[in-house]
Amino acid sequence: MAKIALAIHGGCGVMPEDSMTQEEWEGARRDLAAALSAGYARLKAGDSAVDAVEAAVVVMEDSPHFNAGHGAALNENGLHELDASIMDGATLEAGAISASRAIRNPVKAARALMEDGRAVYMTGPAADRFAEVKGLQVEPQSYFTTPKRVGALEAMRRHAAAGTDGTENEKHGTVGAVALDAAGHLAAATSTGGYTNKPEGRVGDSPIIGAGTYARDGVCAVSGTGQGEFFIRHVLGHEVASRIAYLKQDIATAADGLINHDLAPHRIGAGLVAIDAQGVAVAPYNTPGMFRGWVTPEGHAFVATHDQIYEIEL
Amino acid sequence: MAKIALAIHGGCGVMPEDSMTQEEWEGARRDLAAALSAGYARLKAGDSAVDAVEAAVVVMEDSPHFNAGHGAALNENGLHELDASIMDGATLEAGAISASRAIRNPVKAARALMEDGRAVYMTGPAADRFAEVKGLQVEPQSYFTTPKRVGALEAMRRHAAAGTDGTENEKHGTVGAVALDAAGHLAAATSTGGYTNKPEGRVGDSPIIGAGTYARDGVCAVSGTGQGEFFIRHVLGHEVASRIAYLKQDIATAADGLINHDLAPHRIGAGLVAIDAQGVAVAPYNTPGMFRGWVTPEGHAFVATHDQIYEIEL
Repeated sequence: MAKIALAIHGGCGVMPEDSMTQEEWEGARRDLAAALSAGYARLKAGDSAVDAVEAAVVVMEDSPHFNAGHGAALNENGLHELDASIMDGATLEAGAISASRAIRNPVKAARALMEDGRAVYMTGPAADRFAEVKGLQVEPQSYFTTPKRVGALEAMRRHAAAGTDGTENEKHGTVGAVALDAAGHLAAATSTGGYTNKPEGRVGDSPIIGAGTYARDGVCAVSGTGQGEFFIRHVLGHEVASRIAYLKQDIATAADGLINHDLAPHRIGAGLVAIDAQGVAVAPYNTPGMFRGWVTPEGHAFVATHDQIYEIEL
Repeated sequence: MAKIALAIHGGCGVMPEDSMTQEEWEGARRDLAAALSAGYARLKAGDSAVDAVEAAVVVMEDSPHFNAGHGAALNENGLHELDASIMDGATLEAGAISASRAIRNPVKAARALMEDGRAVYMTGPAADRFAEVKGLQVEPQSYFTTPKRVGALEAMRRHAAAGTDGTENEKHGTVGAVALDAAGHLAAATSTGGYTNKPEGRVGDSPIIGAGTYARDGVCAVSGTGQGEFFIRHVLGHEVASRIAYLKQDIATAADGLINHDLAPHRIGAGLVAIDAQGVAVAPYNTPGMFRGWVTPEGHAFVATHDQIYEIEL
């Protein structure tokens, strides 16, 4: 049987273990497992890597535990502005949206844009209208808001007033997935609310093809999480691909080099998941933790938030 | 004396020579020369490559002959939505804005964002407000409109109604500049109105760092023009850089490979200007023509729209 594999992240910058209750950690791991399960079911059914990454991201968008869709971060004006993208490594087709205020599942809008073909990237109210015309669910701002994100905004405003630094978890978080399907195709998708207290109109790396999201058959698929400004400047996803394709680095060397060497001088929180053409997945991060999970080509599934890795049944 | 060099473009997709009057062609070449002159003056004065590309792009934004700033294309709703970005190859710092409806010189807002540092990329009304707060000039939509672009929108609407194809010139156009300064630093900047009759909210490659704009010291600086969707998918600027840095291609091979090989199957209009760390500039395009100009490290200056190249005095 052809190899299939999947890896997901629910954001790096996880707080110290004592900053969330045991129930919250378990809930986050449970939703990571649900996202893996949703994506892996598509791959097992012979569906495309694009189908799989979309399905996995949708579960994390719908979960309150991750900063995307329901549970997205609030910006400086207390608004949700959502970014997402998806890329098909088989065709290099892609779709991306930014500054959406209404799309329930931004990754679905990115997918719809990719298939529509009229544009790769749309921003603002026009992206919301596009989604609605395509029959995707739109929501009032209140749908995206959770008590946790309201608390995070209040905390960041206190930090800003006091001139102190917020925790990594308050600063960023993003969800994403990468997959290899049975036909040998790669895909990547990413979705985010940005970071708490971000400037209105600020766009990070998540909707930037080549930065937060990139996939190319025969090379790799990448989804990033962290302070997106630096991912844009380093063209993160495409840089990983270039080192694999042109410098003949393996995926672990290429991904680790970006996160722990190239980005290190910036002293930012950063992580990614990446998968190569053989289904080898890596998930480097430089923060205390990263919500993540993966299914190996042999069918073994794992989720993790910190160093401890939990094998799960899908 | 240290080498300095500059290259600019005013968009590919130039129409057949008989589609504009002799006065219009001369006016376009005159404004290309003015843009070169403005950028080169900064380099001769010992200013940075960032200063030079900004100065050159501002002249083309202010000119009615090019699709950026005054003279920008109109979207499907008869509105101007402007995108721009700038990148400093010395630091990999960058600034980008999209869907601006009011900034007189979008490249100045991209520069201001790069220097502000709070974000790399802002979109929509928030980008306009950012520019205004920074003291940059904002304008009503009418400032950007020229009779030529009104005519182009009417023509594209007729084409759309009749199911026929517009000319390359009606479809796209963008301005950009790349420079090498006396300190050996590279920079790139790009600014555009997109293409005539584009969907509202559509963003092309011009504000995408790694696609329409990219600069990295020791490697190259790139600014693209053409159907931006494909530049995003191929991560054009960073791909040129990766082939130079990792495959050890020269800049002509790398740039020509993207425009005339990688993009060829898509049958789109495409061009770019690029400059390497030694000041060697290239300007490949696959359309009937491309507004372009350059100053060599030896101080010789040239402008061109089609095959014929005019040496000029700066």
